[in-house]
Amino acid sequence: MSSKKGQRNNLSLEQYAEGVAEGDRATLARAITLIESTKPEHQALAQELLQLLLASTGNAIRVGITGVPGVGKSTLIDQLGTNLTAAGHKVAVLAVDPTSERSGGSILGDKTRMPRLAVDDNAFIRPSPTSGTLGGVTKTTRETMALCEAAGFDVLLIETVGVGQSETAVAGMVDFFLVLMLPGAGDELQGIKKGVIEIADMIAVTKSDGDNVQRAQLAASEYRAALQILTPISPNWSPPVITVSAKENSSIGELWDLIEQHQSKFAETGELEAKRQEQAVRWMHDMLEERLRARLRGDKAVSRRLSELEKQVRLGQAAPSLAVEEIVELVGLGPAAKKSG
Amino acid sequence: MSSKKGQRNNLSLEQYAEGVAEGDRATLARAITLIESTKPEHQALAQELLQLLLASTGNAIRVGITGVPGVGKSTLIDQLGTNLTAAGHKVAVLAVDPTSERSGGSILGDKTRMPRLAVDDNAFIRPSPTSGTLGGVTKTTRETMALCEAAGFDVLLIETVGVGQSETAVAGMVDFFLVLMLPGAGDELQGIKKGVIEIADMIAVTKSDGDNVQRAQLAASEYRAALQILTPISPNWSPPVITVSAKENSSIGELWDLIEQHQSKFAETGELEAKRQEQAVRWMHDMLEERLRARLRGDKAVSRRLSELEKQVRLGQAAPSLAVEEIVELVGLGPAAKKSG
Repeated sequence: MSSKKGQRNNLSLEQYAEGVAEGDRATLARAITLIESTKPEHQALAQELLQLLLASTGNAIRVGITGVPGVGKSTLIDQLGTNLTAAGHKVAVLAVDPTSERSGGSILGDKTRMPRLAVDDNAFIRPSPTSGTLGGVTKTTRETMALCEAAGFDVLLIETVGVGQSETAVAGMVDFFLVLMLPGAGDELQGIKKGVIEIADMIAVTKSDGDNVQRAQLAASEYRAALQILTPISPNWSPPVITVSAKENSSIGELWDLIEQHQSKFAETGELEAKRQEQAVRWMHDMLEERLRARLRGDKAVSRRLSELEKQVRLGQAAPSLAVEEIVELVGLGPAAKKSG
Repeated sequence: MSSKKGQRNNLSLEQYAEGVAEGDRATLARAITLIESTKPEHQALAQELLQLLLASTGNAIRVGITGVPGVGKSTLIDQLGTNLTAAGHKVAVLAVDPTSERSGGSILGDKTRMPRLAVDDNAFIRPSPTSGTLGGVTKTTRETMALCEAAGFDVLLIETVGVGQSETAVAGMVDFFLVLMLPGAGDELQGIKKGVIEIADMIAVTKSDGDNVQRAQLAASEYRAALQILTPISPNWSPPVITVSAKENSSIGELWDLIEQHQSKFAETGELEAKRQEQAVRWMHDMLEERLRARLRGDKAVSRRLSELEKQVRLGQAAPSLAVEEIVELVGLGPAAKKSG
């Protein structure tokens, strides 16, 4: 089954499911659009589709990649992805950029950012819309990952620029979290975002080529020292620090080898399964809280009073606890909440 | 006005307010008990009391202190507090211990833990009950701080053993967050809890006496190196790392000087006021979300279905998003949430 332009709004659940399962890229793209739609009827269909495809998900290696603008994320992903498709993998790249406006298709243009992957038949690139609120990562990022897995992509690269809470959110939905750092030493190392190196499964210092090689190695040794005093996330993995050059395709192979080592070790120990289960449950709770918050924002009277009370609390005119009581009453959740208190 | 045993359950709002304002310790203790009570009528009275006293709060320096068990928190607080009361301060110590069962009065016994402060007329020690859920810190910790301020205590020391999320919660309600570390070097430094050094306004390596002095200094220099590559929370403050000995009362004065320097600098720049306002608003939102979560737990049908769905999500039998839709419907928040989505 292939999707034709004329059918654009008419695919049935079965057509979506079949097309995605066959790895049809056009149907995959339309299924993602369905999932991103806020229309209730689309939402319902999307949920049915996800539930239907659930059994055929989970077979990819999920890698999150973060780094400040200019660190060379696109160049690295283009090179890494090209190596991987050449080795027989099917690679999906999901770009999460909480700062960009919804661009309807690409951040800066995929063809400019990842010139080789953009025309690679075994690669699929999709930016995330930015309407979500879970740390700048849309709730649909995770669902899009599931669709890509159902479509047979066995490598998922989730890219984020690391603004706001997006790295934490991305780290919470992947198997491996790769942090890219610029070469530099001493004072230049200043400015690592709080918490980022603590959730890294590996740090790769980029642009280690030409005059930069020595600076990159110096930076790497400083990151190694910093990592040494932090408790590793798992006793079975001490996050390595490597230097790479995407431009020269040097150590990109080593980078992937380390990711695969991590994956097979964690599969062996059961940590991979446990981590994914935990992530799914946490994701459910995050979404649930997001929906409850949306309930507060969605009711005009509640939302207006909440912002008045926020102002009073800020100025020290109202005790925070008193403000909370008032909102809880207003939203009609008072009695049940009291029972449980 | 002094509180008599016979009146235990009969204080009026005015009696509470007057007693606290006069710094009467027995009334303060009873007001805290009132705030910790979960009975609706006590809650209502407590909220009125807090609102009434609100204007006389905010005049203390609020210091959070964390460190692993054995680091010497009690010894340091006993010495620091004794120095401070000797210098004319009134010191309240609030101990937050998410691991201890409610002990009705003390953790390990205040007289054993802080022998001098426990009998000091200008000190007030109060453990927090552990029934709260905001990162192991009860919602009443913050309200207890307000009561202590209204009672004229000008130094608040909030102690936490740093289990779970309690440091983050405590850091979110103080002006200054002090992290205590054991002396040691190299491998012994392993095991710093993720995120702790990132929220530290100062690190003090404890037990720097006798044979430990050199090891403490070595540890301090490693922490300095680790802090150097992190962006400081404020451009006006680079968290210092010092070595102290509570046993010998050495550098405890320097420790307090640094805290006061931080406080006056942040008062000058306006950061203190801004931070406190932000903390009050965030506290309000945290409590509000806690109440919404309590609503889910409080309804038996919702709570039972939620744990069934959680299991299915964990086992990959249900998509997280589908589970969320079902709960949102069940709790009766569906339509409004949809409107806002």
